[in-house]
Amino acid sequence: MVDSIEKLIEEFSRFPGIGKKTAQRMAFFVLKQRDEESEALAQAILEVKSKVRYCSVCFNITEDDPCAICKDVKKDRSTICVVEEVNDVVALEKTNQYRGLYHVLGGVLSPLDGMGPEDLKVKELLSRLKDKQINEVILATNPSAEGEATAIYLSKLIKPLSVKVTRIARGLPAGGDLEYADQTTLANALEGRVEF
Amino acid sequence: MVDSIEKLIEEFSRFPGIGKKTAQRMAFFVLKQRDEESEALAQAILEVKSKVRYCSVCFNITEDDPCAICKDVKKDRSTICVVEEVNDVVALEKTNQYRGLYHVLGGVLSPLDGMGPEDLKVKELLSRLKDKQINEVILATNPSAEGEATAIYLSKLIKPLSVKVTRIARGLPAGGDLEYADQTTLANALEGRVEF
Repeated sequence: MVDSIEKLIEEFSRFPGIGKKTAQRMAFFVLKQRDEESEALAQAILEVKSKVRYCSVCFNITEDDPCAICKDVKKDRSTICVVEEVNDVVALEKTNQYRGLYHVLGGVLSPLDGMGPEDLKVKELLSRLKDKQINEVILATNPSAEGEATAIYLSKLIKPLSVKVTRIARGLPAGGDLEYADQTTLANALEGRVEF
Repeated sequence: MVDSIEKLIEEFSRFPGIGKKTAQRMAFFVLKQRDEESEALAQAILEVKSKVRYCSVCFNITEDDPCAICKDVKKDRSTICVVEEVNDVVALEKTNQYRGLYHVLGGVLSPLDGMGPEDLKVKELLSRLKDKQINEVILATNPSAEGEATAIYLSKLIKPLSVKVTRIARGLPAGGDLEYADQTTLANALEGRVEF
């Protein structure tokens, strides 16, 4: 096939969840786009890299440091929600439920992948907790083996600082079905039951 | 969210088959890539647009005109396979079954979308058939309503030129199952039955 198309297909195939077929469809789509459109795409890619940095407080992504959430005076500054990745902040903000601050770890503890505490923003989290305003840390790492281990690790570090530490609830997802829930989910749902 | 990330998510969402969630995952992937990697991607997008053109003979995509297939002396120059889109050429070449030339229509007849014969490379196909070397035209448009209509339309135009016109076989796909085949597929499979 044509070299430059091959190259573009290869580039698109690198993306997570994008297979060879989808990458091919995408490359042909670029070919069919108007010149201005594909230039806008190329430009958007380069701008993300040049403009976006990490917030020096919470390590969320931002164009200005500190980020919009850390600067927002309407946020509840007494609570920090600890998440693995930037996407998690996006997901939580969408709920409109949480009004506090965030802290993005940048991953989870995962000895097999060589990810230790020093690879995460743990030190930075602990130093934020010196601020006496903060009275609760919500651990919102994923309900995976690594996420749980990271939450336990952090809770052990934070408790001695006499800050309340909580973990997001694990249980059945909305619209879920007991019959089809896996054992761990069901066990968590039972264990985490609340009184009516 | 961050403006430049929003913009990139929007750009990726334009792609066919890429939803909001995938676009978001892709944008964050770009953010995590090394600078050289995302520059290579942006470059690949621009190069496709600047280098790739359509072959003046068969309207396949190419960097040099005429394309590699039209120039290939080992190809069987007596047969032209007519397809809807460039991707179809890629798919057929992969089979290693077909050794002839191609002609890319650039779409199908579709009155509802305002696609008439003048929007496809029909005139160009007919003028290629003036070459007395060509003795078979294989109509390989998709087995959809529009593809069938386009094949019928083309066959009516080509037959008077005393060139053999064939249509690719319709029937059960390899690995398919009679029980789960739709009516049209099954009807086609029966109608197209061949003697043992």
